[in-house]
Amino acid sequence: MELNYDDRGLVTAVVQDAATHEVLMVAWMNAESVRLTQESGEAWFWSRSRRELWRKGATSGNVMRVREIRVDCDADTLLLKVDPAGPACHTGERSCFYRLLGDS
Amino acid sequence: MELNYDDRGLVTAVVQDAATHEVLMVAWMNAESVRLTQESGEAWFWSRSRRELWRKGATSGNVMRVREIRVDCDADTLLLKVDPAGPACHTGERSCFYRLLGDS
Repeated sequence: MELNYDDRGLVTAVVQDAATHEVLMVAWMNAESVRLTQESGEAWFWSRSRRELWRKGATSGNVMRVREIRVDCDADTLLLKVDPAGPACHTGERSCFYRLLGDS
Repeated sequence: MELNYDDRGLVTAVVQDAATHEVLMVAWMNAESVRLTQESGEAWFWSRSRRELWRKGATSGNVMRVREIRVDCDADTLLLKVDPAGPACHTGERSCFYRLLGDS
């Protein structure tokens, strides 16, 4: 299946805990990070700010084993179901979505 | 909380079934669609292709009642937990993520 990469060469990636079904984070993937993820079985992303490939957990140790990769109807978004080795968020929270909109 | 809209004035919105925790779709929201969603309690998005506000289910009847809106650590992605009135996907599938990457 061909993915519909945007004009930056990226697709959106939603990361969900395969066991708890909690949505953990959203990141970006280019073709190379998709390939590395499929080959290694661990999540690789593309950092838009650093403009580099980024193996999730390379620094923190909180790698994500990828159980399943799903693709949406228009093939521009992926859903990764993962087993996280630790918190997904750089703040130490389990999920990046730890706040309600409207919280101060 | 201030949202970090991108240079197009958009944030990414992940939509999750509040009851089953299935990830249903990913769409985009501008400030106006965030406001309309908060005021109406139903999901409004921004269509990038049609360049217009889009009330989910306006045509199909498959509106989404929004239970909760969460925001991620860098405030550029929202997580909407919803009660969907029907299939989220225009194909009639319950979720837009009905295919595995690698399916033909």
